Amino acid sequence: MKQVVDLNCDMGEGFGQWVLGDAPDDQIMKIISSANIAAGFHAGDANSMNRVVKLAQAHGVGVGAHPGYADLQGFGRRYINTDSAELINDILYQIGAIREFGRRYGAPLQHVKLHGALYMEAATNDDLSEMLVDTLQVTSPDALLFCMGISKTYAAAKRAGHPVIREFYADRDYDNSGSIVFTRQVGRPDPAKIAEKCVKACQTGKVTTVEGDEMDIEFESICFHSDTPGALSMGQAIRSGLSDAGIRIATAAEVAKTLS
Amino acid sequence: MKQVVDLNCDMGEGFGQWVLGDAPDDQIMKIISSANIAAGFHAGDANSMNRVVKLAQAHGVGVGAHPGYADLQGFGRRYINTDSAELINDILYQIGAIREFGRRYGAPLQHVKLHGALYMEAATNDDLSEMLVDTLQVTSPDALLFCMGISKTYAAAKRAGHPVIREFYADRDYDNSGSIVFTRQVGRPDPAKIAEKCVKACQTGKVTTVEGDEMDIEFESICFHSDTPGALSMGQAIRSGLSDAGIRIATAAEVAKTLS
Amino acid sequence: MKQVVDLNCDMGEGFGQWVLGDAPDDQIMKIISSANIAAGFHAGDANSMNRVVKLAQAHGVGVGAHPGYADLQGFGRRYINTDSAELINDILYQIGAIREFGRRYGAPLQHVKLHGALYMEAATNDDLSEMLVDTLQVTSPDALLFCMGISKTYAAAKRAGHPVIREFYADRDYDNSGSIVFTRQVGRPDPAKIAEKCVKACQTGKVTTVEGDEMDIEFESICFHSDTPGALSMGQAIRSGLSDAGIRIATAAEVAKTLS
Amino acid sequence: MKQVVDLNCDMGEGFGQWVLGDAPDDQIMKIISSANIAAGFHAGDANSMNRVVKLAQAHGVGVGAHPGYADLQGFGRRYINTDSAELINDILYQIGAIREFGRRYGAPLQHVKLHGALYMEAATNDDLSEMLVDTLQVTSPDALLFCMGISKTYAAAKRAGHPVIREFYADRDYDNSGSIVFTRQVGRPDPAKIAEKCVKACQTGKVTTVEGDEMDIEFESICFHSDTPGALSMGQAIRSGLSDAGIRIATAAEVAKTLS
Repeated sequence: MKQVVDLNCDMGEGFGQWVLGDAPDDQIMKIISSANIAAGFHAGDANSMNRVVKLAQAHGVGVGAHPGYADLQGFGRRYINTDSAELINDILYQIGAIREFGRRYGAPLQHVKLHGALYMEAATNDDLSEMLVDTLQVTSPDALLFCMGISKTYAAAKRAGHPVIREFYADRDYDNSGSIVFTRQVGRPDPAKIAEKCVKACQTGKVTTVEGDEMDIEFESICFHSDTPGALSMGQAIRSGLSDAGIRIATAAEVAKTLS
Repeated sequence: MKQVVDLNCDMGEGFGQWVLGDAPDDQIMKIISSANIAAGFHAGDANSMNRVVKLAQAHGVGVGAHPGYADLQGFGRRYINTDSAELINDILYQIGAIREFGRRYGAPLQHVKLHGALYMEAATNDDLSEMLVDTLQVTSPDALLFCMGISKTYAAAKRAGHPVIREFYADRDYDNSGSIVFTRQVGRPDPAKIAEKCVKACQTGKVTTVEGDEMDIEFESICFHSDTPGALSMGQAIRSGLSDAGIRIATAAEVAKTLS
Repeated sequence: MKQVVDLNCDMGEGFGQWVLGDAPDDQIMKIISSANIAAGFHAGDANSMNRVVKLAQAHGVGVGAHPGYADLQGFGRRYINTDSAELINDILYQIGAIREFGRRYGAPLQHVKLHGALYMEAATNDDLSEMLVDTLQVTSPDALLFCMGISKTYAAAKRAGHPVIREFYADRDYDNSGSIVFTRQVGRPDPAKIAEKCVKACQTGKVTTVEGDEMDIEFESICFHSDTPGALSMGQAIRSGLSDAGIRIATAAEVAKTLS
Repeated sequence: MKQVVDLNCDMGEGFGQWVLGDAPDDQIMKIISSANIAAGFHAGDANSMNRVVKLAQAHGVGVGAHPGYADLQGFGRRYINTDSAELINDILYQIGAIREFGRRYGAPLQHVKLHGALYMEAATNDDLSEMLVDTLQVTSPDALLFCMGISKTYAAAKRAGHPVIREFYADRDYDNSGSIVFTRQVGRPDPAKIAEKCVKACQTGKVTTVEGDEMDIEFESICFHSDTPGALSMGQAIRSGLSDAGIRIATAAEVAKTLS
C-alpha cells in the first residue's frame, strides 16, 4: 500500500509554432510532480525548453530530460539502428540542454527518461542500458533514471547502484508479459477508469492485463501522456483519485528519499 | 608588450561523416590553448562534441562553447532575423551541450564564443549583447566571453563586470574602422607572415590595416581558423613565432588571471 | 466589377504529427479553388504533400507549390540572408517535390507562391524576383506566379511575359502604401466582415486601409490563411458572400484564361 | 561476354560547405556514364543538386535520383523503422527534386537508385519493393530502377515489367550468398585489381567471393563509390581496363536499349 507516488508527464512536445495535444502546459503543471521535457531531437526547441523548465520550477515540479532519437518527423517513435556509443552522445547532448535551462532558473536536473522508441530500445538492449547507466554515474550520479520495472534499464541501474524510478503507465494497457500494449487510441480514455486503475495499482500493486489477469506491478511514479486526448481531465482525475485515497503526490526526488 | 597570450581555434566543425579543413583535430590541439567547439547548430554533432571535448581536456586546452545560428547548410554564416530572447535560448541550448560533455571528462566550461554571423550580429546589436551577458551572469558567471574589442558585446560585458577576452584575428585582415575584412581567401596564407603579424601585435599592440595604416589593437587571445587552407602550418608558425619572441601561450583562463 | 475570382489558401502546414490551425484540410478543400502546398522547408513533409496534393486533385483544386526559407522552427517567417542563386535552387527543390506528387495523382502544377518571409523578400528584391521569373520561364513557363500587385515579383513577371496572379489578402490589413500590415491577430476575425471586405474589393476594386482611406487594389485571387483562428468559418463566409454577390470562384488557371 | 556496360557513381554527397571524398566532381563526370545524385535526405542540398545535374547533362551522363533515409548525420546508412507508404512519399519527394533540376538543364530523369540502408532494406523487403515499383510505374514508367540482381527490388521490377538495371559493385566484396560484404575499408583499394575484377565480370560473368569461390553475377552497370579513397584513380583504371578489353561504356539508358 503506497502512501506517496510521483506523477510524471511528457512536456514541451511541440516544435516552433506547433503544439501537441489539447492540454495547456500551465494547467498540466498544476497536476504533476515531475516533467519529462523534450530536448529538441524528437520534439521541443530551445524556446519550449526554456518555457517549460521555467514553468516546472515555478510549480515545484521536478525537471527531467526526455532524450529521444533525432527524428522530428517521426516524433522519436521510429527505431533508428544506431551505435550505442553514439546514442549515449545524443542523450548527453539533450540532457545538457535541459540542465542548462535548469541552471537559468535554479532547477537542478531531477531525472532522465528516454522517449518513445529509444525508451523501448533501451528496455531490451542490455548494452545500451549499461552504457547509459555508466555514463550517468559519471555525469549525473544523483539524477533519477526513469524506466519500466521489467526493463534491462532497471536491471542495469540496480546493478550499478544508480538511483532509479519505475513507472506505471496510466493511459497504456499491459499484457501478461508486463509489456505495454501500443494501440492507436480510439477516442478519449475515461478519466474515472484511468484514475481507478491508478489507485488500485497504488493500493494493491496489481494491474489487470489485456488478457484479463491480475498482474503484480512495482513502481514509484505514474505516467500519463499530455498528447492523449483529454489529457487534462485525465490528469485531474488521477490526482483527485489518489488524493481521495489518501495517497500523496510528490516529486520523484521526494519519493526516492522515502525509498532509501 | 604582451608576455602571455591565449591561442584559440574553432574545432569540431564537421557533421556526421563530413569534416572541414585539412588539419587533424589532434594536431591542432597540440598548438592551441583554447578550443571553440561547434555545438550542433551550424556544425558539429554529439559525436564530434564528445570527441573534441575529450581531446581538449587531454591536451589541457580550455573548453569553449561556440554557438551559432541554426543553419547547417549555411554553416552559420547567414544572418537569420531572430528575436533576441529566442537567440539567447538557442545559445543556452548549445552551451549546455558542450558543458555536459565537459562534465563527462572533467573539463569545466572555460569560455563562450559566438560563431560566424551570430558573432557579427552580437558585435553590433546592443540588445542581443546585453541579454547574452545578463544571461551568462546567471548561468555562467565565470565563463569568459570571447569577442572583438570594438564590439557591443565587449562593451556589454565590461558594463556588467562579466569576464571577457578580446580576440586578434591572425588569418583575417583589418580595416581602419577596426572591423574584420571578409575576403574569400585566395590560396593559402603565408604562415611566416601570419606569425610575424601576431608577434608584432603582441609586442607593439599594432596591426597594419588593408588601407596601409598602423592601428592600435587590444586583445588577450589570438584566433586562427582550422578551415583555412594550411591551418596546421599556420598554427605551428604562430606558436613558434610567439615562443621565439618570448611570449608564452596559455589558456584564456590563465591569461584572464594575469589581468585581474 | 469582377465576375470570377480564385480563392487560395496555404495548405499542409504541419510537420510529422504536428498540425497547424483548427481547420480540417478536407473541409478547406471544399471551399477553395487553389492550394498553396508547403513543401518541407518551412512546413510540410512528404506525407502531408502526398495527402494534400491528392486531396486537391480530388476536389478540382489547383495545385500550387509554396516554397519557403529552410526554417522549420521559424515557420519560414524569419528572413535568412541568402544568395539569390541559392534561393532559386531551394525554390526549385520545393517546386519539384510538389510537382512529383502531382504526377502521382494526375494534377499538373498550377502555380507557385512563395511563403512568408521569402514572399516578402522577393516582393522588394528585384534581383531575386528576376531570377525567379527567368528560372520559371525555363522550368515552368505555364505555372502561374502568385504575388502582390505592388511587388517587384509582379513587375518582373510582367516584363518577362510570365503568367501571373495578383492576390488580395482577406485576413490581413492594408496600409496606404499598399503593404500588408502584419499584426499579431488578437482573437478571431469576424467572418462576416471579412466576407464583406472581399466582396467589396471584387465589386469596387477598393479596400479600406488602416489609415481609413479607400485604396485601389487589383487582384485575381483572394487569399486567406488556414492557421487563422476560425479559418473554416471565415472561408465559408467568403465563399457564400462571393456567391451571393454573383461572383464565381474558379481555379487560378481558369481565372487566368479569362484574362488573356 | 559483355560488349557494353554502364558505369555509375554516387555524386553530390556533400552538404552545405562540406564535401565527401577526394575526387573532384568534374573529374568523375568524365569517367562515368550514370550519376546517382544525392537529393537532400542523407546528403546533398539544392545547390549541389543543381550543380551536379548541370554537370551530368554537360558530360552526357545519365541523371539519376539517389533517395535515402532522412538522416544527414548517419549519411543514410542507418536503418530507420518506417512505414513503407511513408518511405515511398520520401522517395517521391527526392525524385521530384532531382527531376526538377533536370528540367532546368534539359536532362530527363534516367534512373532511380536507392541509397545505403534504404537500398539494402528494399533489397530484402518485398512490400517496400512492390510499392516502389508500383509507384514508379505511375510516376516514372521509363525511369530505370537500379538494384542488385538477387534483390526483392529486382524481382518486383521484373514482375511488373518495369525497366531495371542490375549492378556490379567494383569496390565492394561479395560473399557466396551473393550479398555485398560491408567492411570498413582499410587503406586504398588497388585500382589495377579493381579494374581486372570488373573486366573479368564483364567477360566471364563471374566474381571471386570472399570465400574464394567463383560466383555467377549478372549486371548491366558497374558501380564505384566517389568516397572510396583514391576514387578517381580507381574509376580511371576501370574505364581504361574496360576500354582495353573492348567493352564500351554507355549510359544505362543506352545499355537498356541493347537489352530489349
